[in-house]
Amino acid sequence: MPEFLKVLTYQNARQLIIDHFPAREIECLPLENCNNRVLAQELTSPEDMPPFNRSTVDGYAVSAEDTFGSSESLPGMLDYTGSVQMGREPQFAIANGQCAWIPTGGMLPIGSNAAIMVEYTEKLGEDTILVSRPVAPGENVMLKGEDIKQGSTIFRSGKILKAQDIGLLSSLGIDQVPVFRPYHIGILSTGDEIIPLNQVPVIGQVRDVNSYSIAAALESCGALPQRYPLVEDDIASLHQAVDKALGENDVVIMSGGSSVGVADYSVEVMLSFPDSEMLFHGIAVKPGKPTIGVRVGKKLIIGLPGHPVSALMVFNILCASIISPHLVRQVDAQITINVASQPGRDDFCPVQLEEELDGRKAKPLLGKSGLMSILAQADGYVHIPYEKQGIRAGDMVKVNLF
Amino acid sequence: MPEFLKVLTYQNARQLIIDHFPAREIECLPLENCNNRVLAQELTSPEDMPPFNRSTVDGYAVSAEDTFGSSESLPGMLDYTGSVQMGREPQFAIANGQCAWIPTGGMLPIGSNAAIMVEYTEKLGEDTILVSRPVAPGENVMLKGEDIKQGSTIFRSGKILKAQDIGLLSSLGIDQVPVFRPYHIGILSTGDEIIPLNQVPVIGQVRDVNSYSIAAALESCGALPQRYPLVEDDIASLHQAVDKALGENDVVIMSGGSSVGVADYSVEVMLSFPDSEMLFHGIAVKPGKPTIGVRVGKKLIIGLPGHPVSALMVFNILCASIISPHLVRQVDAQITINVASQPGRDDFCPVQLEEELDGRKAKPLLGKSGLMSILAQADGYVHIPYEKQGIRAGDMVKVNLF
Repeated sequence: MPEFLKVLTYQNARQLIIDHFPAREIECLPLENCNNRVLAQELTSPEDMPPFNRSTVDGYAVSAEDTFGSSESLPGMLDYTGSVQMGREPQFAIANGQCAWIPTGGMLPIGSNAAIMVEYTEKLGEDTILVSRPVAPGENVMLKGEDIKQGSTIFRSGKILKAQDIGLLSSLGIDQVPVFRPYHIGILSTGDEIIPLNQVPVIGQVRDVNSYSIAAALESCGALPQRYPLVEDDIASLHQAVDKALGENDVVIMSGGSSVGVADYSVEVMLSFPDSEMLFHGIAVKPGKPTIGVRVGKKLIIGLPGHPVSALMVFNILCASIISPHLVRQVDAQITINVASQPGRDDFCPVQLEEELDGRKAKPLLGKSGLMSILAQADGYVHIPYEKQGIRAGDMVKVNLF
Repeated sequence: MPEFLKVLTYQNARQLIIDHFPAREIECLPLENCNNRVLAQELTSPEDMPPFNRSTVDGYAVSAEDTFGSSESLPGMLDYTGSVQMGREPQFAIANGQCAWIPTGGMLPIGSNAAIMVEYTEKLGEDTILVSRPVAPGENVMLKGEDIKQGSTIFRSGKILKAQDIGLLSSLGIDQVPVFRPYHIGILSTGDEIIPLNQVPVIGQVRDVNSYSIAAALESCGALPQRYPLVEDDIASLHQAVDKALGENDVVIMSGGSSVGVADYSVEVMLSFPDSEMLFHGIAVKPGKPTIGVRVGKKLIIGLPGHPVSALMVFNILCASIISPHLVRQVDAQITINVASQPGRDDFCPVQLEEELDGRKAKPLLGKSGLMSILAQADGYVHIPYEKQGIRAGDMVKVNLF
């Protein structure tokens, strides 16, 4: 075993990655590019919404008190004083007993405090409107600042912007939004036995899986993955490839080199860069023990296990929530069978979710847990922490969704 | 009221949109571009996975029977016959009492049926290996075709491809994948009172909200939205804009024109194209009554209400699940208060979800339901169907997530 071996607990390894993960940078983007982006600063409202008292119906602006007691059998009578134009400030006021036509969105004239829908009115000649129903003060109107007050907080930092949030920001004229810049993350697959996707493997070769699956997982975390060509198992090629990837990215994820000799090469290369530091070499987790973390200056190299299922699981348990802390989704479910776990190690068990009549069930996908075809059936995973010896059938668990 | 008015139930309107929605086209994409895309055909495996019996550990390939009875106090002794090279077919077989070094991923020599981890072995001189633990037949190996058998179904059509699915496909060398082509959907906002985002509204004007919020919602459905400049309220401009948008998209979504005159313009324009047909004009839903559906040839125009909250709600209840049927996500929750509903109309009530000790709660966001600031707090909506008069506090409901 090399002297720099540092096997850590899951929590310690995770904390070291958090401590050394490059700081998130902020970029200001046009609102139309901000869907699903994460807000990087608190936003406050530059104005009152709506900016004036507004009708929410087509009908008549009234003083609500003038309609009290009106009914179909005994309609109230109001004097028609004019019409509010859409997009214009009314040049008249409503006195007692008066009303004015107002379209949806129109500005309430001074003296009015409600709107009555046209359906409940009738025109009697040129100057009189019959009202067949009373309205309460504030009915069918939206008051100035009622939606959002000027200076009030709209969203806090960390909010993932969805369609309705984009709508709210556009209504306030916020067309440039500070969001977190996505991480640029390079992916290197190494190993002489690894061949490109479009080649037919001869005995003993396997196709490159990790650079595809990890790139997809990174995309789903909102990062910008950059896949690099397969690297041969020699120090010079590996050094050159890592150097290039470090130069072009915030973080580099390597995978492969599962045999002992190659793993040593990888570590030697990672530590050959100026200001590099081994954070951990091996984690007490299952799956994913041979995971490596190395800091290089202000950047990070994460060495994932070469086995595709382990690589993707370790990415999910160790990297995903750090790259996109705002996207973590958990659901509660009841585990269907006993799952044993070794104390002194954090276990992560892929599960399939099923909705049953008496609630949501998490069905562990055990057995040949190294099969990608099994992982493809999983909806998420359950974390069995360090100190536990397992979970019992019927226990409620938190399922971290993929 | 214009003569072509056809007010329909929600179910009927939805069915008409489904019936007339343009057919989904299929495109074949490189695997690396398929994350979160929807598979358009069933995929079967072109080969066995793994293609040969493979060790899942570093250790020794053995005939399991030779290890039975081994223990730390009484280790078994095996003859060392050679070493399996990574990526090479072994040129020797394992006879009774023999073993061979095998790396993780190495091909099992003929005669071996298990692998024993190096941790449970010890070298005794050049030719003898001590084994301190028995292994069962098949232990630490993965058999040919055990993950996926040649010709078996990998995924069915309609599957949303996630990282582990991409991994599985890459391991099988499937580098071109048939997926549904995203719909191109144009968005037109109309109305003289609507101004661009970067302008300060004078009294009675409002900023363009719908083209931003609907574009974001379309993106989240996996569609490709195309926003067009604001259209003035005159027939010639509107006709020109709709014509252009229809030419460039599969579907056109219009919004605005809430005042009666403008709504008439819009309908007149929609029906002015050759082979156009009014599908519905008004739906018995809340919110969203003034929604319009028009077929133009093999394309569709959907006219959303002008009010931003109504427009986005109608998009969600009527369009989202048709554009991306595979993305619909529902959760169960318990409604916290009574919600009244008018029979003969489908009601859609935005709710906020809260996880409490006794389960997930859905808190209706009532009151000023027309406020975008309220909708921004919603996690989803509850559908109260046509025949119901409401839901009672404590009822379990399905929440459709935004």
